[in-house]
Amino acid sequence: MQCRAAYDSLEVLFARLSHVEQALGMLHWDMATMMPAGGAASRAEQLATLKALHHEMLTGPDVHGLLDAAEGEALDPWQRANLREMRRQWLHASAVPARLVEQLSRACSASEMTWRKARAEADFALVAGPLTEVLRLTREVAAIKSQALAVAPYDALLDQYEPGGRAAVIDAVLDDLGAFLPGFLREVQDRQVPAPEGPSGPFPTDCQKALGLRMMATLGFEFEHGRLDVSQHPFCGGTPDDLRITTRYDERDFMASLMGVLHETGHALYERGLPAAWRHQPVGRARGMSLHESQSLLMEMQACRSREFLSFAAPVIAEAFGATGQPHWDAETLYAVNVRVDPGFIRIDADEVTYPAHVILRYRLEKALIAGDLQVADIPAAWNEQMGELLGLVPPNDRQGCLQDIHWFDGAFGYFPTYTLGAMTAAQLFDAAAGAVPELRTAIAEGDFRPLLSWLRANVHGQASLLGTDELLTQATGRPLDTAVFKAHLRQRYLP
Amino acid sequence: MQCRAAYDSLEVLFARLSHVEQALGMLHWDMATMMPAGGAASRAEQLATLKALHHEMLTGPDVHGLLDAAEGEALDPWQRANLREMRRQWLHASAVPARLVEQLSRACSASEMTWRKARAEADFALVAGPLTEVLRLTREVAAIKSQALAVAPYDALLDQYEPGGRAAVIDAVLDDLGAFLPGFLREVQDRQVPAPEGPSGPFPTDCQKALGLRMMATLGFEFEHGRLDVSQHPFCGGTPDDLRITTRYDERDFMASLMGVLHETGHALYERGLPAAWRHQPVGRARGMSLHESQSLLMEMQACRSREFLSFAAPVIAEAFGATGQPHWDAETLYAVNVRVDPGFIRIDADEVTYPAHVILRYRLEKALIAGDLQVADIPAAWNEQMGELLGLVPPNDRQGCLQDIHWFDGAFGYFPTYTLGAMTAAQLFDAAAGAVPELRTAIAEGDFRPLLSWLRANVHGQASLLGTDELLTQATGRPLDTAVFKAHLRQRYLP
Repeated sequence: MQCRAAYDSLEVLFARLSHVEQALGMLHWDMATMMPAGGAASRAEQLATLKALHHEMLTGPDVHGLLDAAEGEALDPWQRANLREMRRQWLHASAVPARLVEQLSRACSASEMTWRKARAEADFALVAGPLTEVLRLTREVAAIKSQALAVAPYDALLDQYEPGGRAAVIDAVLDDLGAFLPGFLREVQDRQVPAPEGPSGPFPTDCQKALGLRMMATLGFEFEHGRLDVSQHPFCGGTPDDLRITTRYDERDFMASLMGVLHETGHALYERGLPAAWRHQPVGRARGMSLHESQSLLMEMQACRSREFLSFAAPVIAEAFGATGQPHWDAETLYAVNVRVDPGFIRIDADEVTYPAHVILRYRLEKALIAGDLQVADIPAAWNEQMGELLGLVPPNDRQGCLQDIHWFDGAFGYFPTYTLGAMTAAQLFDAAAGAVPELRTAIAEGDFRPLLSWLRANVHGQASLLGTDELLTQATGRPLDTAVFKAHLRQRYLP
Repeated sequence: MQCRAAYDSLEVLFARLSHVEQALGMLHWDMATMMPAGGAASRAEQLATLKALHHEMLTGPDVHGLLDAAEGEALDPWQRANLREMRRQWLHASAVPARLVEQLSRACSASEMTWRKARAEADFALVAGPLTEVLRLTREVAAIKSQALAVAPYDALLDQYEPGGRAAVIDAVLDDLGAFLPGFLREVQDRQVPAPEGPSGPFPTDCQKALGLRMMATLGFEFEHGRLDVSQHPFCGGTPDDLRITTRYDERDFMASLMGVLHETGHALYERGLPAAWRHQPVGRARGMSLHESQSLLMEMQACRSREFLSFAAPVIAEAFGATGQPHWDAETLYAVNVRVDPGFIRIDADEVTYPAHVILRYRLEKALIAGDLQVADIPAAWNEQMGELLGLVPPNDRQGCLQDIHWFDGAFGYFPTYTLGAMTAAQLFDAAAGAVPELRTAIAEGDFRPLLSWLRANVHGQASLLGTDELLTQATGRPLDTAVFKAHLRQRYLP
């Protein structure tokens, strides 16, 4: 029998950490969906205490020694990968002094609050000071983590969301896409015919909810292990055995909620497909944010905005609103509505073609901010310049420009690129799945997602964090991330 | 400036413990109301880990020394009481070895599972073995805590639910009531006229829910600090700033859910009225289970089954079901329905007059079990004998007899008496409130609970755990618990 005393002790510790993280996840979900406003202060205390306990456990005096000792023990590949992920978590937690973590946390709270006011008043100057402080502390964190992880400062921030992510790699991918998009967009707009008349509302919330639940089941969501609720900002929360996805309803527009539900269902199916044997260990987690986003976008953009899916869905949708057989509810109309390209100022309202431009802009700016090459005061001008270059638009004010997203004001630098990396990864995975499983597209046209889900379970979900993102993608599709597949997808869908 | 270093350290520790307890409370609420079945195993792990962390923090190596050191510091009365409650919590947590806690926890799980089967099959013999093991371990715990708290073994169990509760005191009260009830019951039954015809259903769930919310607001529930949901077993959970009460709906009977909602609202108003300044300290908690039950029963039984309340409520209720002006919905009919006395086998279905008999029976038996004077195998015979003596009924089988309640099978010995202590305390507090606030009853007849709530806030809720239960009652009503008030209430209501 091999001795794995140190490793085994770490598994016990990380299982406990996982239970605390899951409790935190449920408390966050409740806060966004169920909690009355008056519960906010107590909830903040609960969350802060659980996070502090988590941090104390993760950075306890024995952990470093156990991690080193376990390196010398006989581990199988999953255990070895688990140890690697344990160390990564420990490095992120232990590298930064508690004082700095607290300072940044307080600066983010202040900045976020001021941002709400600044956005409402479309006045960037209001929040420039607080954001400067967030940036200053974030750069300090980046410098410290850069030492601990032996990577560049921006890459150290990236690593929090996208383990192993490197700006040098992302630069090549996003520059390529950034060079392609403006010309492609002009071509799409030149050829685009006027918008067809789609279904007209109102679309009752009850009908929308029933439709959402029906479609979640179609995609493979297990209601024994999750539920659908309402929150202001849709998300997928909970735990792999108890997935809580949310949406919001607009009675004038059912498609936004439906596509949102399909998107969050993609996230949920990923979590649900993580290997149960590694449920409470770091290696059993989802790989990173770009792969996570790839799973939601694979469902929403690749599978469900396709002609195949909409040919199945159109009569189901019409039935849900008692509109069976009425004009404007047919599959071709719904498809035309869904592939409409319309450049705008707001990222979260963007279509599939223009969305990457919003991300590229933010990625370029945040890299420059972290490098010290861009000052906070110069953000509005830089933003508007990039918008003009990438989308040919100039925001009329900062509310519709650099004040629209919460991310930076809440200290999330290094997150933005994962949206578009996810979109490209989704295209590449879907293409590989459709190539490997010939009946996949015809099954989707019949509302049968089992062939697709089965391929994803084997090639993505079940792999959890065994491999790095690039390795996983190469193993699943035969090559690392390749913009050609995403560009081909866009051409096929938007320039047929 | 006084030095309170030890005491101050303890406040920091107990605030953290409170945050963990609150997180546990929310996770329990979610489990009962929202969680899909497939989340049970993960939830059990989350709860177990948070409970273990709580136990480790509470019994940490410094705590005993800090408690002793704080005794010598200059404390005001609230701080002094807080220190007393800290020590009580610490004693309960540290007295019993972890091994025994675990054994008992496992024995309870096994016994509870077997009990579900035994109850379904009305076969006590099935669960006699597992219950014997639970009892054996509970007696071991009682013996250990008896030493630690310097009280009798049964009193040590009582103390878990009713701090400072003593069987010698409860004996006198419940024996007095037990001697009174059989004769009183016969008298009530002799005089009782046939039941009037009440409202007939079905009573749609939506209407019941709207009515429940309306009546919660009438009693003073703040929806900024709580919500109403559905669970199989109604309860009041959450935290003082975020109270989660639950009910269940039967479309054939709206009164059961309505009275349940009023009952749980009483619990919630107690929690909400606890002093905010002591929110996360032991002294800031509700005093004990009998006082908690007194607050629910004061609302349900004293205030809301009164002629005054029902004269206000009858038209509101009729309106809720679209039955305004229809026969059988008037206040007198609703009152007659609500004061119907009908002895039965099942405690939770019992009316106000016969309920104490169910409790007295259980109290006598569980004392004998803990003392070793009654063996598990002899429970069914002893149960049936007491039922005959107290209510003149003999259960046709053990499902309707000694298998009906989960408490003992889940290890809860010492809990039962708090139900009837609560009922008597409710009568005494309501009597004192009505004496002190002349307009209290007429206000209730107008749906105005502010005079009552204001008296309760000052005399009960705001006192939290500053005093012992008896002291609090004496301060609020001028005397300790006195069966005469409860008996007078029963006579006034049931033998008018």
